[in-house]
Amino acid sequence: MFELKNPRGTIDYLPQQQKVRQDILRKLQDVFEKYGYQPLESPILCHFDVLASKYAGGAEILKEVYKLYDQGKRKLGLRYDLTVPFSKVVGLNPDMRMPFKRYEIGKVFRDGPVKTGRNREFTQCDVDVVGVSSMLAEAEYFAMSVEVFKNFGLPIYISYNNRKLLFGLVDVAGIDADVASSVILSLDKFEKIGREGVFNELNEKGISRNSTEKLFSFIEMGPKELIQYLTQNPMNDAIKDGIKEINELDMYVDAAGLSEYVRFSPFLARGLEIYTGTIWEVFLTDGSITSSLGGGGRYDKIIGGFLESDIEYPAVGMSFGLDVIYEVLKMKGEAGTAAPAQIFIIPMGTEKECFVLATDLRELGYNVDMEMTGRRVKRALDYANKSDIPYVIIIGENELKENKFKVKNMLDGVETEVKFNELEAMIKSIIKG
Amino acid sequence: MFELKNPRGTIDYLPQQQKVRQDILRKLQDVFEKYGYQPLESPILCHFDVLASKYAGGAEILKEVYKLYDQGKRKLGLRYDLTVPFSKVVGLNPDMRMPFKRYEIGKVFRDGPVKTGRNREFTQCDVDVVGVSSMLAEAEYFAMSVEVFKNFGLPIYISYNNRKLLFGLVDVAGIDADVASSVILSLDKFEKIGREGVFNELNEKGISRNSTEKLFSFIEMGPKELIQYLTQNPMNDAIKDGIKEINELDMYVDAAGLSEYVRFSPFLARGLEIYTGTIWEVFLTDGSITSSLGGGGRYDKIIGGFLESDIEYPAVGMSFGLDVIYEVLKMKGEAGTAAPAQIFIIPMGTEKECFVLATDLRELGYNVDMEMTGRRVKRALDYANKSDIPYVIIIGENELKENKFKVKNMLDGVETEVKFNELEAMIKSIIKG
Repeated sequence: MFELKNPRGTIDYLPQQQKVRQDILRKLQDVFEKYGYQPLESPILCHFDVLASKYAGGAEILKEVYKLYDQGKRKLGLRYDLTVPFSKVVGLNPDMRMPFKRYEIGKVFRDGPVKTGRNREFTQCDVDVVGVSSMLAEAEYFAMSVEVFKNFGLPIYISYNNRKLLFGLVDVAGIDADVASSVILSLDKFEKIGREGVFNELNEKGISRNSTEKLFSFIEMGPKELIQYLTQNPMNDAIKDGIKEINELDMYVDAAGLSEYVRFSPFLARGLEIYTGTIWEVFLTDGSITSSLGGGGRYDKIIGGFLESDIEYPAVGMSFGLDVIYEVLKMKGEAGTAAPAQIFIIPMGTEKECFVLATDLRELGYNVDMEMTGRRVKRALDYANKSDIPYVIIIGENELKENKFKVKNMLDGVETEVKFNELEAMIKSIIKG
Repeated sequence: MFELKNPRGTIDYLPQQQKVRQDILRKLQDVFEKYGYQPLESPILCHFDVLASKYAGGAEILKEVYKLYDQGKRKLGLRYDLTVPFSKVVGLNPDMRMPFKRYEIGKVFRDGPVKTGRNREFTQCDVDVVGVSSMLAEAEYFAMSVEVFKNFGLPIYISYNNRKLLFGLVDVAGIDADVASSVILSLDKFEKIGREGVFNELNEKGISRNSTEKLFSFIEMGPKELIQYLTQNPMNDAIKDGIKEINELDMYVDAAGLSEYVRFSPFLARGLEIYTGTIWEVFLTDGSITSSLGGGGRYDKIIGGFLESDIEYPAVGMSFGLDVIYEVLKMKGEAGTAAPAQIFIIPMGTEKECFVLATDLRELGYNVDMEMTGRRVKRALDYANKSDIPYVIIIGENELKENKFKVKNMLDGVETEVKFNELEAMIKSIIKG
């Protein structure tokens, strides 16, 4: 016989967990749509050439692409992100109305190392807009993030920075443009490995003490002071552009009363090289989980580059981390119930009447399940109990004869009598929500 | 440059369409959960051996499996249905509480011929229960189907039959057991190709005129008469068992007031050989689309066979056809709106104030979008119009000065004045829903 198992790095999400994941996704979708983002579903199967194009995910990620052939010998790959499909859809629909605001929630695949929280098949949850140069787009993402996490009852802040500013500062510090990206990656570790750690890392990368100190002097100025200083002394065009964007974004953030949620953070870099302007990440205020719950940025060059087009495609997007949000909600006991039903009906030789009652209760809007295996009441009760179903109704011949039955609250044991012909009013008074 | 295109048999669902598909799925999920079914998400990647096992989809479907290897040289395949993953989950979780009622909505892949309505990557929507022998399970599916299509505003009926009965009748007609399945497949075409057509097809399959006439004599008796006749004259065990199940199911259906939606149809066979008892399909009452909107059946032997287990796993399940439901709703004009927002705000040099207004309106629960590209009012209005956004607000310096603005209904052109400080009450009186 074959061995029954899942491929490495793939997971079955059983109902207990999937119910919560699904509730998270619905809440996300509802907020996305409130901000004018519309759903898109793109195929998982892609032509390998499209995934391998220069402006797609890059050489590193390409190693992790699952490759396959269809019966027509076409070389295909499973998508590894939702940004390449987004760019593709923009390219394939030249008459699309701009700006195009879409979200996509779907499976992506990466045949890489498997670690805790890192699978080979996983769900991404992306929201992107193409066609907006204004910082209004970023401001909207900040407002949206705040609303998303308010809905989850999670206190968060948004840490943000601007890559133009970062590159400008690196230049002012006398660091060559060709190592700028690498230097920025080291700066990103400031909170994790400390000043000393970053210093050593930059030293190993061949950056002079002078340059590093110069960089640190800016970054350690304090966020507000740095912005103020650079607004008055923009030492090069990159800084000038970056500061202009930051000030514009701050204006919108202040006006909409979002300042308390937003922190300018001159260390933040985000690993991905695709970003050209604003970058941000969302963190829990209480720091009980340090990984970001979501993040995004502006990437004005990617779609045009991918499509080898002269048209400009200014774009901004962010991802929400389904798995980490799930972990946080579970940790905080906010994940909600995964009970398969509100009411469980147990027949004692009264299957027909119980089925009718179940149908009636469902018509009233309740989630109802009933015992269908004919097992004994004790075992059926045990099932309801272990499944966290809050209300149970047992119906035997007596109940039918007397034309009434009891609804048992499984938490407090309280039983309430209901007459069949008073079903609707009575049930509503017993069971809320 | 690479050629920008989608692989054969795959589709981008753009927002206009995806919004409707998503609404359909949500309505389905809500009803499934009302009946105690819980969501499951299983991986798309499967070990090839699991997909190829004897009790899985069979040799025909195996030809259409997309095969691939991970970096560890493990042979994998993309799942071609949701039943094999369901069986797998049952096998991998021996401590699972029974009955296990789950639904799964997800992508499946078949590298077969591409036709209209038949893609290589498509979404299946399955609801299954394992652990219930009683006809209560089937009755529940019928009730659930009725509720699903009521929610869509689609009048339907459920055509059903029982494979035990079919095999029993084929046997009574003197037809060999080894061609029974093939004969049943021909009978299924009765409505499509007529009596004559089925007769000829059976003749070609080597069935004698006598046997065919005998079969026809049963089937043409009329549904009620046939059940009555066979209840009194069960000529073999298969008929006896089949009729018992039909009568039990009818009892539940009658009791719950579902008879008007349910039709016993002695021709119905369903192609799949996995079914062992009840089978059914859901059709539009007005016949405006003749393909079934969903269907299912009982398959008591599959999971145990797949797991090579001595334990019995009685199972019933059905699929809902997302694509055909979408087509019907579109045809009937019931697909709903795909407007990206309820309200579109156009700033005239008032970006900041418009962003604040957008934030306020979203806080009130509205879906709001705003013009962010700085284009002229005429073009922004054109965008809102083409996007079917029902309400537009234009805000210039005057509106700010006078502390009020107009909400324009794009359908009837009516404009209503709103003061900024009366926003909440006024907007609610203008925009419903």
